[in-house]
This record gives sequence, C-alpha cells and structure tokens, in this order.
Amino acid sequence: MALILTFLGKGGSGRSTCAIATAKKLANQGQRVLLVTEDAGPGFGLLLGNELSNTPTAIDANLWAMQLQFTQLLEQNWDQLKQFEAQYLRDPFFKDMYGQELSVLPGMDQALTLNALREFDASGDYDVIVHDGPGDQASLRMWGMPAGIDWYFRRFKQVFQSSQFSKAIMPFVQPVAGAILSGGLSGDMFDHPEIKQSTNVITQGIAAVKEPMRVRAYLVTNDDTIAIATARYLWGAAQQIEMTVAGVLFNRGTNPPAEFEPLPIYNLPTAEGWTSLVEAMPADYMATPSAPAPVDVDVSTGTVRLFLPSFDKKQIQLTQYGPEVTIEAGDQRRNLTLPAPLKGRSVTGAKFQSGYLILSFN
Amino acid sequence: MALILTFLGKGGSGRSTCAIATAKKLANQGQRVLLVTEDAGPGFGLLLGNELSNTPTAIDANLWAMQLQFTQLLEQNWDQLKQFEAQYLRDPFFKDMYGQELSVLPGMDQALTLNALREFDASGDYDVIVHDGPGDQASLRMWGMPAGIDWYFRRFKQVFQSSQFSKAIMPFVQPVAGAILSGGLSGDMFDHPEIKQSTNVITQGIAAVKEPMRVRAYLVTNDDTIAIATARYLWGAAQQIEMTVAGVLFNRGTNPPAEFEPLPIYNLPTAEGWTSLVEAMPADYMATPSAPAPVDVDVSTGTVRLFLPSFDKKQIQLTQYGPEVTIEAGDQRRNLTLPAPLKGRSVTGAKFQSGYLILSFN
Repeated sequence: MALILTFLGKGGSGRSTCAIATAKKLANQGQRVLLVTEDAGPGFGLLLGNELSNTPTAIDANLWAMQLQFTQLLEQNWDQLKQFEAQYLRDPFFKDMYGQELSVLPGMDQALTLNALREFDASGDYDVIVHDGPGDQASLRMWGMPAGIDWYFRRFKQVFQSSQFSKAIMPFVQPVAGAILSGGLSGDMFDHPEIKQSTNVITQGIAAVKEPMRVRAYLVTNDDTIAIATARYLWGAAQQIEMTVAGVLFNRGTNPPAEFEPLPIYNLPTAEGWTSLVEAMPADYMATPSAPAPVDVDVSTGTVRLFLPSFDKKQIQLTQYGPEVTIEAGDQRRNLTLPAPLKGRSVTGAKFQSGYLILSFN
Repeated sequence: MALILTFLGKGGSGRSTCAIATAKKLANQGQRVLLVTEDAGPGFGLLLGNELSNTPTAIDANLWAMQLQFTQLLEQNWDQLKQFEAQYLRDPFFKDMYGQELSVLPGMDQALTLNALREFDASGDYDVIVHDGPGDQASLRMWGMPAGIDWYFRRFKQVFQSSQFSKAIMPFVQPVAGAILSGGLSGDMFDHPEIKQSTNVITQGIAAVKEPMRVRAYLVTNDDTIAIATARYLWGAAQQIEMTVAGVLFNRGTNPPAEFEPLPIYNLPTAEGWTSLVEAMPADYMATPSAPAPVDVDVSTGTVRLFLPSFDKKQIQLTQYGPEVTIEAGDQRRNLTLPAPLKGRSVTGAKFQSGYLILSFN
C-alpha cells in the first residue's frame, strides 16, 4: 500500500510545482515515487521538464511520472466491462459498442482517476503516489466519490426493498434474469458476488480517504488574499469528505497567514530552481501528521465532534430528513455514518465551538 | 435567447478577472448581463467585491451576479424528478429519498451548471450570460455533454434494438411497465413523450454550443510559457466539441504570442483597477466573430474540414470502429455527425494541413 499525497488551492498558486518538489524530495529520501497528473495538456510536462505518456516512465532514481489520458483509460475499462459482460450474460449486449468510439462525459475523469490510483496503489510498485489534480472542488468531489456512491447504493437498496415498486416488479425479476443472465439469478440481487466485490472496492476506498497514512492533502497558497481565502475554504470542504489536511505550503510569500491554525506552515523560497524548493518541502511526509482528525466519536458520552474549520455557524446546516444525520457545508452534503452504539439515535444538541461542530446523541 | 460567453486558460492567468471585466463592459453598453460563477468558495465574490448568493442579485445597472450552489441545485432538481415520478408511476419510488440528504457526485456539477445556464437563457431576462467556470478540460467536458449524451443515447438505442438481449426481455416489458407505470406503456419505449422532450433539450444544447452567437469561448493567458501552451491546448480541445474560440485575452504581457494565428489578440493593461481593464476588453462581443468555424462540410466535393489548431498530425487519431467516423484529439473523442448526403459513406482520404484535418468521403 502506498501513501497518496494531493494538493489543494487556487489555480496559479503553485500546486503543480509543489507536487513535483514533493515527489523529488521523497525520491531523494529513497521512497519509490509515482507522480501522476490529471492535466491532459502540455503544462505539467513543461513544468517538470519531461515529456509524459499514459504509462509510468522513470525520470530519475526512484521517480516515475505519467499523465492520465482519459480516452485511453475509458477504452481499457470498457474492455474489462465487455469481458465481464461476456462472462455473465447469455448474449453480450455491449459487444457491438467499441471502446475506441466512446467519448468522455463529465464525472468519468474522476471515476477513472480514482480507479487508476487504486490500481497503482495495489500494484505494490510504489511507496508514495503524488497526485496532481485540479486541486479544487472537483478534486474533493473525486475523493468523496466512494462515500457518495456507497450512500446512494445503501439508500437506494433501502428504498427499493421497502417499496411497492419492488413488490410490483419482483414477479418478473426471476424470468427476466433467467432470460438474460447465463446462470439465472438466485437469492437477493443485491447479494450478487460481483455487486459484493464492487461494494468491497468502495468500502476500501472510503477507508483509504479517511486514513491519513493512505491519503492526505496539503493546502497551497501564496500571499494573495483570494488565494488564502480559497485555500481556507478548501480546508473546510476537505473535512466534509473526512480527508486529513496536514499542512500549508506557503508559496513565495512574506507574512505567513494566521488563518490556518493549528496546521503547520511551510515557507517556500522565492529563489528559482528546484534545489531550494525541494529542501523547503516538509521533511516528515512519511510520519503520522499531527493535524486534527476530521471526525472524532466518543461513544461513552454519545458525542460526535466534526472538525469544520473556515466555516462559521450559519454556513453549516444540520438536518435529519432521511434516516441519517446530514451535514451541509462547503457545497457538499455528508450523511454521518455512526458507529453501532450511536446508530439510530437522534441528535439532542449541536453547538459550534472553535472550529468544531459538536453533536450530542440521546 | 442570450449569448453565453466563457473563458478558457490556465488557473491564475486571470480568467475570473476577464469574466468580470467582460460583464461590466457589456452592462455599460446597455446589455442585460448575468454573471454566473461555479466557484463555490469565497474567491470570486472577493474579486468582484460583492457577496454572492445562489440567485441573481443586481450589483450594478444592467448587471446581475450569482454563485451556483450545487447542493441547492441538486435539491431543486430532485424535487422536480419527484413530481415527474408522481405523475407517471403507480407508486412513486423516490418519494422516500429527500433532496436535502443527497450528496453531490462528480459530473453532477457540470450537469447542474448546464441546466441552470439553459434555464437562465430561456428566461429571456438576460441578453448575455457571462460564465466563470474551471476553464479547463472539465469545462470542455461540460460543453461537450449534450453531444456526448446524445451519442450514447443513439448508440445505446441502436445496439439495444438489434440485440438478442432486447428480444429476450421484450415479453416482460409490457407487464413490468403495466405494474409500475400509471398508464402502462404503448408503442416504442424510446418514443415516450418524456424521452422525446429530453432529447429535444439535448438537441437544442448541441445546436447552442456549435453556434457562436449562442455560446462562445475566449482564451486567457499571460506571457508565461506554460500558460500559453495550456491556452493553445485548450483552443484545440475546444474545437473537438465544436465550440467557437473567438479571441485571446493577453493578460499583462509584453510580447503578444504568435501561436494563436488567426485569432485576434486583445492586450490587457498592467494598471490596477477595473476602468482600464474594462476599456481593453473586446468591443465587439455582440458581433459575429471572424474566428474559423470548428467544422466545415462541403457536400458537393464530399469533403469535411475540421479546424484542429495546436495539434500536430500524430496527436490526432482517426478511426471507424463503430458506424461513425471517430476523431480523437485533446483527450476527447468526437463521433462525426455527417449531413444526410454524406451519411454512411466511408472516408477515402485524410490529410492534415495548416491546422485543418481534411477528410474526403467516397
């Protein structure tokens, strides 16, 4: 398993530069590093000084780099889907659609990126994967995708199983399945082995994003007011997907901003060239970060503390429409998955105190 | 109908600043202008100097501004879906899922943005909508979405109707539909009025993106090599979704780049403040642009000319796996929709000449 590092901040504040310097530093330390960019254009390669392709290429000792190309990734994944289909369906349906003709729709980039990162992580070939993405809300949507899909799937299953709809179509499920699936269908369709396997991948994805030794973000900003405000916003928004933000890379600024307490701030030099920049990058990437955990549950007192820095009370909304407690902040909703002892209990109190939303359960 | 203007370029090159200056200029000219940002954070409001909400607010004469908030938009759209469901289904299925608990998945931002722009366009309240988005590949995915969805839908229908799969499930379609739909189902399910209505919306979306008096992009760059290379790449990539790029806004640079021939270049001043910047913006936004059309079909000679600047021959791939000709470039695939006289004919020749891919049909 690898450590995945990613960077959040306003465009132009130096995110890609920090990703490259981080990768160089870790490779110098002897870690096997893969540097992956989502930038389909020539920008990242020009900055790095290497021409990139869609497979990892060694560019230095311990250092590999690549550029994700989504048309290629879509084609490969489509071929896998077709193999899968050929195995299960009596008469494969998508065999007449070719990976080579598929265009990339919004959302596919993120799904394909996550899947590629998962595969590189699982390969065991790298100790660290340094990820260069859009670094904004779109990146957070990507990291929140496993939890989001998991929620939609669970909720859909729940609604489906208790619906008249389900009872109405049930008599037809077995014959339809018999007509199209090679082996028919036995038992609960949500228990199908392939569905179980995908939910496993999703569960592992959720666990990885929450675990700071698996996935971790750093904020990047310069001393421009708007860049600082954007980084602060992304800090709070990252907590909404329970991703640990471990520090601030302060790019070529003079007065380190005070708005990021209690995160460590790393001052990056104004000098040109990689040497001094690599030097200035955090030396402790491989150590457990000291940053606050996004969520902290105390079962004994029935208390859940959510770290939501950068928001004020009126930017956070707490509702309980469905069966779960929903927190809205940073233009994302998060449905709280509570540990067994708190599950099903209702919120009796909520207060917002020094960056924490503190919920009490009955 | 409104003219929609959008800006493409590297992050930090001044896209949002150009969007604001453009909106101010057009409002000064007497056009009713709506300025819409996808930036969920505080950055755009700080730059504009106005606090923004999720509905248009008048900030000056003829000028309204707003910030798209995707959790809110998702909630509104979900409520519409539920009304629609209540109308057609015997027993509404999603009634137990609440818009207030839905989290935003990747791709939803783009779909919700397009839909919001479509509604503002249709309202007749604005002459111009100035759109501030991520301005990168993600924005192009969004503008390419109507054509992408249309292709998937057509291709899926084609594959479905000719499959054994379709024949296998057909005996069950009527009884299942009878059990779940209020009025049962008659005729071809792809001919259902609601499906027809959504395909109409998609067809109109495709037409709007192709029409430079409806949707038009400008490139933004400063004199940094990487910003120039990125803008050039996005120029080519925009042609892949048949969007007209009408000019280059050259931000605070000294030597206007020569790489954007034949586009007009607008030099933006280095002076601080909006006045001189607004002055320097194109004066002819409301006129038909002189930029090359992304596609040019000559039925009489059986020739199709595709404008694909910024790519060289080996970055463009031409295939014919499915029933259509597919062009791959700029990490996007485009399936050529040919006019009736050329439909079904095969490519007999392809050459790449001064930025144009020229295809000859038999």
